[in-house]
Amino acid sequence: MQNLRYDFNNLMAERVGEHGVSDAQLQALGPKVEAAASAIENVPLGFRKLLFNTKLADEVAALAQKLNKRFDNFVVLGIGGSALGNIALQSALNHPEYNLLERPRRRGPRLFVLDNVDPNQITGLSDVLDLDKTVFNVITKSGGTAETLSEFLVFRDALIRKLGEKQHVEHIVITTDPEKGELREIVKKHSYASLPIPPDVGGRFSVLSAVGLLSAAVTGIDIHRLLAGAADMDAACKSKKLWENPALTGAALHYLMDKAKGKNIQVMMPYSHGLRDVADWFRQLWAESLGKQMDRAGKMARTGQTPEKALGVTDQHSVMQLYIEGPYDKVITFLTVDEFGSTVTIPHAFPEYDTVKYLGGHTMGELLNAEQKATELALTKCGKPNCAIRVRKVDEKTVGTLIYLLEMQTAYAGELYNINAFDQPGVELGKNFAYGLMGRKGYEAKRLEVEDAGKPNPKWVVSV
Amino acid sequence: MQNLRYDFNNLMAERVGEHGVSDAQLQALGPKVEAAASAIENVPLGFRKLLFNTKLADEVAALAQKLNKRFDNFVVLGIGGSALGNIALQSALNHPEYNLLERPRRRGPRLFVLDNVDPNQITGLSDVLDLDKTVFNVITKSGGTAETLSEFLVFRDALIRKLGEKQHVEHIVITTDPEKGELREIVKKHSYASLPIPPDVGGRFSVLSAVGLLSAAVTGIDIHRLLAGAADMDAACKSKKLWENPALTGAALHYLMDKAKGKNIQVMMPYSHGLRDVADWFRQLWAESLGKQMDRAGKMARTGQTPEKALGVTDQHSVMQLYIEGPYDKVITFLTVDEFGSTVTIPHAFPEYDTVKYLGGHTMGELLNAEQKATELALTKCGKPNCAIRVRKVDEKTVGTLIYLLEMQTAYAGELYNINAFDQPGVELGKNFAYGLMGRKGYEAKRLEVEDAGKPNPKWVVSV
Repeated sequence: MQNLRYDFNNLMAERVGEHGVSDAQLQALGPKVEAAASAIENVPLGFRKLLFNTKLADEVAALAQKLNKRFDNFVVLGIGGSALGNIALQSALNHPEYNLLERPRRRGPRLFVLDNVDPNQITGLSDVLDLDKTVFNVITKSGGTAETLSEFLVFRDALIRKLGEKQHVEHIVITTDPEKGELREIVKKHSYASLPIPPDVGGRFSVLSAVGLLSAAVTGIDIHRLLAGAADMDAACKSKKLWENPALTGAALHYLMDKAKGKNIQVMMPYSHGLRDVADWFRQLWAESLGKQMDRAGKMARTGQTPEKALGVTDQHSVMQLYIEGPYDKVITFLTVDEFGSTVTIPHAFPEYDTVKYLGGHTMGELLNAEQKATELALTKCGKPNCAIRVRKVDEKTVGTLIYLLEMQTAYAGELYNINAFDQPGVELGKNFAYGLMGRKGYEAKRLEVEDAGKPNPKWVVSV
Repeated sequence: MQNLRYDFNNLMAERVGEHGVSDAQLQALGPKVEAAASAIENVPLGFRKLLFNTKLADEVAALAQKLNKRFDNFVVLGIGGSALGNIALQSALNHPEYNLLERPRRRGPRLFVLDNVDPNQITGLSDVLDLDKTVFNVITKSGGTAETLSEFLVFRDALIRKLGEKQHVEHIVITTDPEKGELREIVKKHSYASLPIPPDVGGRFSVLSAVGLLSAAVTGIDIHRLLAGAADMDAACKSKKLWENPALTGAALHYLMDKAKGKNIQVMMPYSHGLRDVADWFRQLWAESLGKQMDRAGKMARTGQTPEKALGVTDQHSVMQLYIEGPYDKVITFLTVDEFGSTVTIPHAFPEYDTVKYLGGHTMGELLNAEQKATELALTKCGKPNCAIRVRKVDEKTVGTLIYLLEMQTAYAGELYNINAFDQPGVELGKNFAYGLMGRKGYEAKRLEVEDAGKPNPKWVVSV
């Protein structure tokens, strides 16, 4: 049975006109595509190895079971790649109002992902946490992320004050590099429970490592099936041929959309409440992997589509006017679902009104998918290129397959752009300025640089 | 005291280099700017009139007080302009974990905004609602929105089955056109409580009408102060001069960013958990107002920046790599906050580690604002244009001021682009296809058109 179909029809010139990709363009790219496939085949991709690390998955599942019984709240302290995948799995595979359910109707503790440092947010979260029954999963690969360490210090202190130095240790699980980093040293010295993040797995590719798996497993998500779903896609990625390997085909077509067709915006638009946060996770994956100043030859390249999240049906009533009538600057990837887990039938009522009558008897799933189909056709008729990733239903298997598809598509795309899809040198400058402002040792020069930049010129500020 | 400062420094060539706007460019735009200001002054803007309709605000507040006492759950059934503003006000002005608080710690009923039709989402929401204690606010200006009507039919039926035909009426409040539309007829015939949406206020400009005000007031938000904050900005918008009227200046600079500097992406990046959903609300405002195929002279124009939501600090660890190193195709608007409502101090700990030590003693608010400042400077040094809207603190007054600033900026921008900022003709085609697919009377031809479009060509689909 097919779990996922990647439908590229409406990216093709034959369907969408001058803004689509022609057969000739695709054929011309052939040698580059083959080279990209070979290159990726020969790289020992860290995120691929995760799929077959059942030992780690067993370890995570065992720890999760223990925590599940003991705690009522599970709080992830992490940011970026240490949060977005966790949120995506939670939205996709747990009850839509999970945290509001009474414990007997929940499969595990409430899950919170604190991925920011706004004091109001932190105070607000503290208001609903009983620390006695709360465990914190501190996730940072390097062990040095300022936001995550700050949250760790705040909640560690609160735990110690409430539960005592000895007892607080049980309320913290640290996920970090297996050997390096100061957080790993802290783990050893203070006997915190911990899980490893393999050094060769970057943050944005880490959702199927202990980073994403622990919070998933603790809320009852079957992480082995998640990995099995990803492995299904990995098998499909063995082929080096277009139209056989969906990730490779996706990479090739989106590369052409950007480079040959000038579409600098990549919209992911799920028509599924459950898959809405996959689009946020994908934003990081696509942006941070492909947004690079230099190519591998050291030449200025300034690559990268801007990934944008939109949500069907909601955003038909928000940004669709622009997508239909505005510039030809974007390509849209729909995520659709064939079978919904539940059926809601619209009752017959008010037959005297044409605006109401036709709805009766249809299901909400029919309405949702009719809106998607209608939007797809409207865009296509207006010459706006779009494609669709259609999953059979939203479950562990298909979500694993979908995640891995997008990871591999990103990796292949990096090869086509001839850039390093696995680093992020551009964030250092801002980080260093922040270190300077916060008074970190060794960053005094950066502080001076901030101060030298001066205050805003008041003539260019308008106040009310 | 200044409640809001709009800082344009880093849009100027003097600060940001060749990707910034020069004085000469701005001066050349002068006559157009003055004409735009005059045009807007002379249009009887529906959304401006809302600010001074204290009678309606009183009526809403009175109804809200009644509902507040009677109900434990307030559910908005609406989509697009009938939902995004409600969500933005809730995030900004209520407790960050509002729905999880016990009733004595909450100022009103739990608030849910159902702005989509996914059956799983609807079933999930139903799981946590006690219908006896739930009121539904059905919001659709035209009265004909398929998604909202479907939700209305589903929950109306559930109410009738649980509470009976007579009793269910008390659990529904309908917000729609004061006279037109079939929903208004239903209100009259079935004696539902109702509130009006003025015909001259478009959905995306309706947050300060009954659309946004009722759900705000019912959860304890001071809607009169919200309107007063907006009125403060309205006063500032009396000036027709650049650098006096912040909305006009914002419109002029962003117009130049797009037309003269080729920035087709407009990122709004709040460094505030509370203001995060203002960015989503703004997406609709900017996209739907300015994304137009034709200008007012009937010439093909294809206008419209694509608005994107990013969140500080979170998205520094996600899309910032692209913003720093990628193409010069975007302009960033930060939202920042001077004073946070609460203080969280980072405890001193682990002085032996340089990566941890420097954090101790700072507040989370300092960290958040240091990150913002650092990011702003890094972008500026890399020649990426950015600006900042800085509010003193997040409260009713400043949120009203901020909302109205963005509404007026959008209205002025429409004049500069010479397009109609208040219609949305492009969404009709998709709507009509959906009507056809759902079997609505009069749309049979559209159904045939969908069928004629044919199935996807299997050669362009890759399955797993």
